Amino acid sequence: MSSANAADTVVCAKRLVTCVPGAKASNPLGVIEDAFVRLRAGRIAAVGLRRDLDDASLAGATIFESELVTPGLVDAHTHAAWFGSRHEEYALRMAGADYETIAKHGGGIVSTMRAVRGASQEAIAASLERRLARMVAQGITTVEVKSGYGLDLESERKQLRAMRDASASARAPRVVPTYLALHALPPEAAGDRRGYATRVADREFEELAAERLFSFVDAYIERSAFSVDDARPLLEKARKRGFGVRLHVGQFADVGGAELAAELGAKSVDHLENVGDEGRAALANAGVRAILLPVASFTLAQQPPDVEALRRAGIGLVVASDANPGTAPTESLPLALAMAVRSYGLTVAETILGATREAARSLGLDDTGVIAPGAAADLVLWDLPHEAAIVQPQGVPRAERVIRRGESIFVAR
Amino acid sequence: MSSANAADTVVCAKRLVTCVPGAKASNPLGVIEDAFVRLRAGRIAAVGLRRDLDDASLAGATIFESELVTPGLVDAHTHAAWFGSRHEEYALRMAGADYETIAKHGGGIVSTMRAVRGASQEAIAASLERRLARMVAQGITTVEVKSGYGLDLESERKQLRAMRDASASARAPRVVPTYLALHALPPEAAGDRRGYATRVADREFEELAAERLFSFVDAYIERSAFSVDDARPLLEKARKRGFGVRLHVGQFADVGGAELAAELGAKSVDHLENVGDEGRAALANAGVRAILLPVASFTLAQQPPDVEALRRAGIGLVVASDANPGTAPTESLPLALAMAVRSYGLTVAETILGATREAARSLGLDDTGVIAPGAAADLVLWDLPHEAAIVQPQGVPRAERVIRRGESIFVAR
Repeated sequence: MSSANAADTVVCAKRLVTCVPGAKASNPLGVIEDAFVRLRAGRIAAVGLRRDLDDASLAGATIFESELVTPGLVDAHTHAAWFGSRHEEYALRMAGADYETIAKHGGGIVSTMRAVRGASQEAIAASLERRLARMVAQGITTVEVKSGYGLDLESERKQLRAMRDASASARAPRVVPTYLALHALPPEAAGDRRGYATRVADREFEELAAERLFSFVDAYIERSAFSVDDARPLLEKARKRGFGVRLHVGQFADVGGAELAAELGAKSVDHLENVGDEGRAALANAGVRAILLPVASFTLAQQPPDVEALRRAGIGLVVASDANPGTAPTESLPLALAMAVRSYGLTVAETILGATREAARSLGLDDTGVIAPGAAADLVLWDLPHEAAIVQPQGVPRAERVIRRGESIFVAR
Repeated sequence: MSSANAADTVVCAKRLVTCVPGAKASNPLGVIEDAFVRLRAGRIAAVGLRRDLDDASLAGATIFESELVTPGLVDAHTHAAWFGSRHEEYALRMAGADYETIAKHGGGIVSTMRAVRGASQEAIAASLERRLARMVAQGITTVEVKSGYGLDLESERKQLRAMRDASASARAPRVVPTYLALHALPPEAAGDRRGYATRVADREFEELAAERLFSFVDAYIERSAFSVDDARPLLEKARKRGFGVRLHVGQFADVGGAELAAELGAKSVDHLENVGDEGRAALANAGVRAILLPVASFTLAQQPPDVEALRRAGIGLVVASDANPGTAPTESLPLALAMAVRSYGLTVAETILGATREAARSLGLDDTGVIAPGAAADLVLWDLPHEAAIVQPQGVPRAERVIRRGESIFVAR
């Protein structure tokens, strides 16, 4: 069933979590016990039972053994290309200040904008490269990274180029770049949201698209940010030009972002603490996935989204870190998974799928986030006995080896 | 002000958080900017302003530079010598089962007792050594570790000896061993709490004390565990024999544990989710510190203790990880600090002091947890700009170098 090749890697697992649902409802994660995965040329060549591996099929291969193997984790919503630190604002928030108050006092996104504008492309890339390395140590092999802290053409370009540069390292995870075109209004826009959005659509988007710096376009649809009407022209243009769309929707208020996402065929809507029945129905009809960001609701001490209503509507659930300097100053998707289970009431299986297969699909990567023949050879070998232990609040990295495209990009010491 | 010595280490910090309160109320952490610390023979030899360091005073010294330096963190309440994993019970709990239900179904402490009884001393030591290494990478230089999973003489001895063995490594943190004498009732006690407590006081305690395997004695005073009357004879004996006392008190119900702790002159009471005014007044009068364990209340979805009442009573506040396989399956004190700020409403300064000076004092280590001449040379050099960033929910290790007794026991790669 699996012939030898001296360049192969064979990973043997006491517990292999394929994330390809099994025939039985009792096995939603497609777990195979005492299994192997054969990797060849960056792809998964075969998956099977260990007892079917004979000496001949192992000849010359590199062999790893592990208690627990899952697909590489996929973090589908991050602002990881931030620069600087907003610890002072964090302490203020903990002492009671709210998001909108902080924004009004010059904190929030605009303060990171200042840090990004003041930094060189090289400095942003170096900071991101270190951050990506810490993410890899947590088992991440694919990470979506948004721009959105430049807020003018030159600075957004600088941030997107830094993302490209940081992802070129041999030990980096795969980076899926998103142009977060409408994140916040820069001070120079003097309060003119519509005018700013129009300029972004006509100029910034065109220039950055020409340089092929991103795969997705994102906008923050919110009472305090951009309305559906502000964002629509840009997003329609992005769709027509073949870019994927993902939207920040319903974090503080339901202003129709979910319906817009459904209409545009977005790949994801993210946050959803405040989305109503109509929004959910629209998302379900359009097959848009919901990206849940529990670290942000932890920081903001918010009520979670109505997960049971999302489930009932049949919406695919993704869990992401939201890594950002303000509301989710974290680099740990596993921490977000622990909070998704504890604070959002997701099951272990929903959470693991939400950080692998479902997350990959929200990024349009159908060959990622699963362990199946033909899929990308992205795996995590865990220093843990069971996938349920991944969603405990470990707070420390528990990956013992992380493999991306067949190559080990992290090995625990 | 600080003479040279070729064996010295000098740590220069843009921001030195001494944890020795400054003269001003606005500087509760005794922060000194642009400062240095001189280490000699495992102790802090001098602390001062960097501008006062001249070339002569640096001759031959090893020099480190850092943005932010704090005392080594002190985790004052852990069950880190556990063996095995309780991920199945964790998943059950997340799906709604409560602590007492899990205990009744053979889960809980007794399931870890089975794992510890079945493991060799060497296996427990090896598991603990790896766990301690992960803790060190988070900035921990001192950690209290409790036994309490053996529940018979031989198995408690094995666990305490494993703690001694694991702490002998040159890269281990300082381990303060606690004999958690009354944790749960083993099945062979057949429900006879009083008889079990009597035997522990008369036999287990005597044998283990003779071998000098612990510094503190602890008991779990709780409705579902041991009463004040069950525990009193053992604890009085321990006090008389010169051991420190620390008590699990008021996690689920107020059964008088705080008053007992005050009466005995305990060094700490731990948990306190349910302690009333009388208990708090007794603790304050006796100078007993309160150890807060927010990861356990996260897991158990509990209301936090009344922190404002503890403050008003003038009780010293400590924050600890409670690292244990059931209710706090974590190895990260920084994660507990993030939850202390977000979920318990501690200030940044209270939290940092609660993981340094106050934690050390609860362990009777008055020379630890502060950066001052004569104190132990235990420091963390952080890859962070400010102590407020330590209490963000980073979820990843952010220490760049950890120094214990003047030696680097961890360096980030």
